[in-house]
Amino acid sequence: MPEPTSIEPLRFEEGALLVLDQRVLPAAESWVRCETPAEVADCISSMAVRGAPAIGIAAAYGLALAGEDRDGAAELLRATRPTAVNLGWAIDQVLDAPDVLARARELHSEQHAADRRLAELGASRFEAGDRALTHCNAGALATAGYGTAGGVLRAAWEQGRLQQVWVDETRPLLQGARLTSYELTRAGIPYRLITDSSAGTLMARGMVDRVVVGADRIAANGDVANKVGTYPLAVLAARHGVPFYVAAPLSTVDAGTPSGDAIPIEERDASEVVPGLPALNLAFDVTPAELVTAIFTEAGVLEAPYEEAIAAALDR
Amino acid sequence: MPEPTSIEPLRFEEGALLVLDQRVLPAAESWVRCETPAEVADCISSMAVRGAPAIGIAAAYGLALAGEDRDGAAELLRATRPTAVNLGWAIDQVLDAPDVLARARELHSEQHAADRRLAELGASRFEAGDRALTHCNAGALATAGYGTAGGVLRAAWEQGRLQQVWVDETRPLLQGARLTSYELTRAGIPYRLITDSSAGTLMARGMVDRVVVGADRIAANGDVANKVGTYPLAVLAARHGVPFYVAAPLSTVDAGTPSGDAIPIEERDASEVVPGLPALNLAFDVTPAELVTAIFTEAGVLEAPYEEAIAAALDR
Repeated sequence: MPEPTSIEPLRFEEGALLVLDQRVLPAAESWVRCETPAEVADCISSMAVRGAPAIGIAAAYGLALAGEDRDGAAELLRATRPTAVNLGWAIDQVLDAPDVLARARELHSEQHAADRRLAELGASRFEAGDRALTHCNAGALATAGYGTAGGVLRAAWEQGRLQQVWVDETRPLLQGARLTSYELTRAGIPYRLITDSSAGTLMARGMVDRVVVGADRIAANGDVANKVGTYPLAVLAARHGVPFYVAAPLSTVDAGTPSGDAIPIEERDASEVVPGLPALNLAFDVTPAELVTAIFTEAGVLEAPYEEAIAAALDR
Repeated sequence: MPEPTSIEPLRFEEGALLVLDQRVLPAAESWVRCETPAEVADCISSMAVRGAPAIGIAAAYGLALAGEDRDGAAELLRATRPTAVNLGWAIDQVLDAPDVLARARELHSEQHAADRRLAELGASRFEAGDRALTHCNAGALATAGYGTAGGVLRAAWEQGRLQQVWVDETRPLLQGARLTSYELTRAGIPYRLITDSSAGTLMARGMVDRVVVGADRIAANGDVANKVGTYPLAVLAARHGVPFYVAAPLSTVDAGTPSGDAIPIEERDASEVVPGLPALNLAFDVTPAELVTAIFTEAGVLEAPYEEAIAAALDR
């Protein structure tokens, strides 16, 4: 029996991938049934499923739905979103597996284990009474596991080291206001929502003890791509002496990307910001490694100098 | 005949104050007719009229609607919103005037002149091809004049020194997406909307040449209270070497407030952020003077050291 707080956004059952539709949460808990790789690709590009690790696992299950043209399906799934490196990584993991579905299920289960491990490591940095701030959603919905930044918050809460979470609403798609609030409510963790531009004031008033966020791609030098709005948080945290943590599995680290400048940043449709008006909708931003206090991974807590720490973690 | 681009959010006609309802712009151009100070007070606290100079002028007209209890009406109007100092300033200007309505009309007309003057001074700092970023709305709607930050943008555009405006949507009430976009469209100035947390990335990419914002209160030391989200912009601008300008009439300067710490910051209802969930909704933030490149006023461009520059401007 699952724990009452467990949230599982992806289920593979009876020859189909069931995707919990994150576009309509928390108003409705609705499932999209995918029987083809193209249907999974649609779920990823439309953000019915989102979060770097979760879209990787969805794509792996998507390949399990491919017929003879497995390479064509892989190409289709790879092209859905450009920034998260977990997507291509997961596809590579399953593409040549003798049993694609079995390998996809294995990745899914490994994600749970990695999340749990990095969450425990991250939570050990917290102290009783801490008020943590997070951006977007990097919980179970985003990883199809225990959560990265969200997992750190859950573990810190379970260990009695967390008083409250400040949740950035995260415009334009409101992953904080819709998804992180939903997860924290189910986990019984106290939180308050704020607009994305309020974090600086809370830090200036000493109301934030730590910032913890997820990541969509970490370059070899430790630069971090994550949901737009992460970079300003890191700049403000540095100014106010607030530790700024990134929580991500090693599958988010891209040794082939030397620095943040080389990370492709997805530009999504302007209508997500406001319908009918000219807008620029950059979905991610890049936080330079110099602003990151530590990166929590399942292989340990990485700290500066990141180039060496990352290379060592990947070699392990 | 008014210029085609002129926007006048307050009209006193036939014994009533007509307030252009900024809560429903740009979807509807609807006017609220106020025949009593209490109705004007409602328009101010509900933000049917907003913007530091505009609420001052609205309150001045509101006093012209008072019967015998002018002091009671002044108290009611003063209590509507705590942060903008122009509110109390305008009330003080008209309270003991022999003809309240005439003095209110005079303040209104002086606002036009002050805006126009500070806008010209500010625009002279711009250079051809500049891409300016602004937050919230500090145009004609916010001042009942030519606009402060919005006036600087209009004047820079008229002088051929502005290529494009980046407009922060400005959560939670979307003054940027609703009001600044409306004004810029009417003025024919090219713009693009962004989410409030995108500005850092645009600055990191060299896509912002100047930031210009209005103010709700400027302390004697030059600290600036303005719409929440202004402080992070100033921090990011400093990091990226982008000039950060504040445009405000001298009525926004409060010699009685020594520094930003002493400025009361309005906390508005959580439901403005998201209905039904716990939220903290701070309407303003404080930008320390050290992050402000210059303050454009009708008495000249003020620069550091601000304490002296402000004292000299007020003494003039």
